[in-house]
Amino acid sequence: MWKPDRTSKKPLYQQIAEFMERRINYGEYPPGSVLPSERKLASQLQVNRSTIVQAYEELRASGLIESRVGFGTRVSGDKWGFTPKHAANWRLYEESGAFLPNIPFIRRIREEIRKNPDIIDFASGELSADLFPNQAFQKLWQEKPYLDHWGYDDPQGYLPLRETLASFLQTYHGIGSTSSSILITSGSQQSLFLITQCLLSAGDAVAIEDPSYCYSLPMFQSAGLRLLRLPVKDDGIQPDDLLSLYRRHRVRMIFLNPNYQNPTGTVLNPAHRMKLLDAAADLGIPIVEDDPFSLTSFDGNAPKPLKAYDTAGNVLYIGSLSKIAASGLRIGWMVAPQSVVHRLADARQQMDFGLSVIPQWIAAQFLGSKTDFEDHVASLRKALLRKRDLLASAMDEYLKGEVDYSLPQGGLNMWCSIHKKVDDFRLLEEGIKRGVIFVPGSVYGSKPGYVRFSFSRPDPESIHKGIRAFAEGLKHC
Amino acid sequence: MWKPDRTSKKPLYQQIAEFMERRINYGEYPPGSVLPSERKLASQLQVNRSTIVQAYEELRASGLIESRVGFGTRVSGDKWGFTPKHAANWRLYEESGAFLPNIPFIRRIREEIRKNPDIIDFASGELSADLFPNQAFQKLWQEKPYLDHWGYDDPQGYLPLRETLASFLQTYHGIGSTSSSILITSGSQQSLFLITQCLLSAGDAVAIEDPSYCYSLPMFQSAGLRLLRLPVKDDGIQPDDLLSLYRRHRVRMIFLNPNYQNPTGTVLNPAHRMKLLDAAADLGIPIVEDDPFSLTSFDGNAPKPLKAYDTAGNVLYIGSLSKIAASGLRIGWMVAPQSVVHRLADARQQMDFGLSVIPQWIAAQFLGSKTDFEDHVASLRKALLRKRDLLASAMDEYLKGEVDYSLPQGGLNMWCSIHKKVDDFRLLEEGIKRGVIFVPGSVYGSKPGYVRFSFSRPDPESIHKGIRAFAEGLKHC
Repeated sequence: MWKPDRTSKKPLYQQIAEFMERRINYGEYPPGSVLPSERKLASQLQVNRSTIVQAYEELRASGLIESRVGFGTRVSGDKWGFTPKHAANWRLYEESGAFLPNIPFIRRIREEIRKNPDIIDFASGELSADLFPNQAFQKLWQEKPYLDHWGYDDPQGYLPLRETLASFLQTYHGIGSTSSSILITSGSQQSLFLITQCLLSAGDAVAIEDPSYCYSLPMFQSAGLRLLRLPVKDDGIQPDDLLSLYRRHRVRMIFLNPNYQNPTGTVLNPAHRMKLLDAAADLGIPIVEDDPFSLTSFDGNAPKPLKAYDTAGNVLYIGSLSKIAASGLRIGWMVAPQSVVHRLADARQQMDFGLSVIPQWIAAQFLGSKTDFEDHVASLRKALLRKRDLLASAMDEYLKGEVDYSLPQGGLNMWCSIHKKVDDFRLLEEGIKRGVIFVPGSVYGSKPGYVRFSFSRPDPESIHKGIRAFAEGLKHC
Repeated sequence: MWKPDRTSKKPLYQQIAEFMERRINYGEYPPGSVLPSERKLASQLQVNRSTIVQAYEELRASGLIESRVGFGTRVSGDKWGFTPKHAANWRLYEESGAFLPNIPFIRRIREEIRKNPDIIDFASGELSADLFPNQAFQKLWQEKPYLDHWGYDDPQGYLPLRETLASFLQTYHGIGSTSSSILITSGSQQSLFLITQCLLSAGDAVAIEDPSYCYSLPMFQSAGLRLLRLPVKDDGIQPDDLLSLYRRHRVRMIFLNPNYQNPTGTVLNPAHRMKLLDAAADLGIPIVEDDPFSLTSFDGNAPKPLKAYDTAGNVLYIGSLSKIAASGLRIGWMVAPQSVVHRLADARQQMDFGLSVIPQWIAAQFLGSKTDFEDHVASLRKALLRKRDLLASAMDEYLKGEVDYSLPQGGLNMWCSIHKKVDDFRLLEEGIKRGVIFVPGSVYGSKPGYVRFSFSRPDPESIHKGIRAFAEGLKHC
């Protein structure tokens, strides 16, 4: 990112004025568009606000920009420098289209984390850098150069990876499949996106867990789906709830995260799994099974996914490397009936023409290298368990009698209910003020008074500090 | 891919019967779903059709599958083996959703190329394996291990790549930009997809070149856009045509491929470029400039893109490494106003949560390594020019007086008009019969009697052979 040169003779404000003038001439800020506020630009370029005030003053004098109270600073419109310029009304275009923006809480949290990398991050459901298998990746990188093709890939994904996954799914999840029924996607996100876009229509009713990760995904609203709630108890959702829901609405699909559910961390009762499969079969509706966490099971005994029992092909099974290896590979997969895989692969060609072969090759090597992969998973489980325990002890120390939480047996998330009545937004801001961030429960569709703490991201040392800060913030709500 | 074991004592038909039974039990072929035809499965598994007939016979005897004349072979429905099973009506789901399937010609061509790798391929607009910079990639791979993060990437894409691209765009295209106005996408395909999905609404009228690559993209129809035609002359589209088109319809966006247009290979008249920019500015409509080929210019003198003159920020500029380095990296980019970049980056997070950092890192290293990159481009131009000349001489030798073509000065495509009246489909099939494949013009929205030959894929030796086969086929139309 460009920063003003503090060693140069040219004053900072002038360097910045010239930089902003360049960007305006590049068309980055079309005529009439709003420039960053003085405060925002100052923090981006790490200078005093007064320097920006001076720089904007300079540009205003040249007639390039204009400020009006309440309207911020804009690039001048029609009478523009010497030649008159018109610009497309971009705002109009940006408001067209099917895709809703991300929900405010999420945007606020992302922006805060970007701005302040030192914040104690209980919000990102992602592994910390030290938990990625960097060594293993470096090793296969060095030992075995990539010598396969650099051209477009098979629409279903890199065949060697699909072959490796077929045996991986059998070994670790008891799921039978062949390479032809596997689709490689950009994380589980793209699998979910393809399903909502290609297999459902606006107005369709889908049943999702309450609370659920799905509520945090605008993609469901963007697709115009009607979301129906299946309450999550301590042992997950109840088959009877599905049946009564179906009687009242014509449910077309069910979205479940049976192992270490996000956000609650609960495990779907094994006895209920067959019941749900049979119910889905009787009603003839598919189940989408999102399974990102099974391998993180702290005691290594996660119940088998529903897909392992699905001989009728009613389950679309989704997995990914994001939570067990490296989210930056963007490797996810879906196991589905042939015809579904073909339909989604064809649609995906229209969206991005498929994934790069390189990360798929890395994933295939890594999953194929039995010992490297299993060593990694073993140490990952240990590390996550340690962090979970640190989080729990911090809770007991600083929040005794103020919150309830249940101890997850796998995954990255701990779900807490707060006894006193709090406003989600207030709670979040009080936390941010004190250097700690987390996700308010309402993001997952639950009533206020819940919080999701992801314990995978912060380093062990800062977990106590973070919860102490949270407790402080809670006091002020 | 699974293949029967010819060394085993177990007869082939039995191995295949067991394999298919396994797949049925995995749910790859749900109850009621159609199995591959005997002929298709035979060619997939490389056995005689009679072997498949025998295998299906076996499964039919066990009641697992049933065949009915005219309905093919299906997995048995409700009464299924011992336990009754129901399956979701997948066909119903596959027909929901917004995404139209790829157009039949394209599907037919892809399938044929997959089935027959030895076919002489004038259809794929892709570099041949020997034209990818394999050495350069291996080198940077070995010299400099990747030591950056393995986590989720910035929604706009890997910052070092965006920085590198900013200077790349300045150096090679005279385009001014900063990393903040660049969005990295999965090839140009994803850039186009994001624009059609997020900046336009169903019913919007967009002006596209006729003929144009856009007609081959179901994404435009999927988004419900009305496509209006700007005829492509020898020097590209005419500004006056845009104005009269605008008067008749409320055009909301213009899609152009000014340099070495796909499929015609024409170059938009430099004198017309400013006129088009001014027209677009006066009308206040954006231009999407797709620029995959500029760097392949055989004499190195491609006219500057419109974006280089776009001070008002009316041009969304799209580039990619697919046609100049390696399509398998899936690296493309868009240069656009700040606010547009933010909107599209946010929407893309919902679709796939961003690109893998690894191919982006490779691209940054490669584009950054001046000499490696420039040596590659220089030899790429030579190789493409040679192939173009071989194609032209083959045309003169075998198709004199039967076709007209214009000699492209860059890019991968030669556009031919055929004198006698032919049926596109017939022509394609006659070619396939003779081991040569190409894209009929109607795929690009043009009247029958045109063909696009991509000369980048076949090796020099087979170009003559391919055109001779085409000429043979043409005789039989």
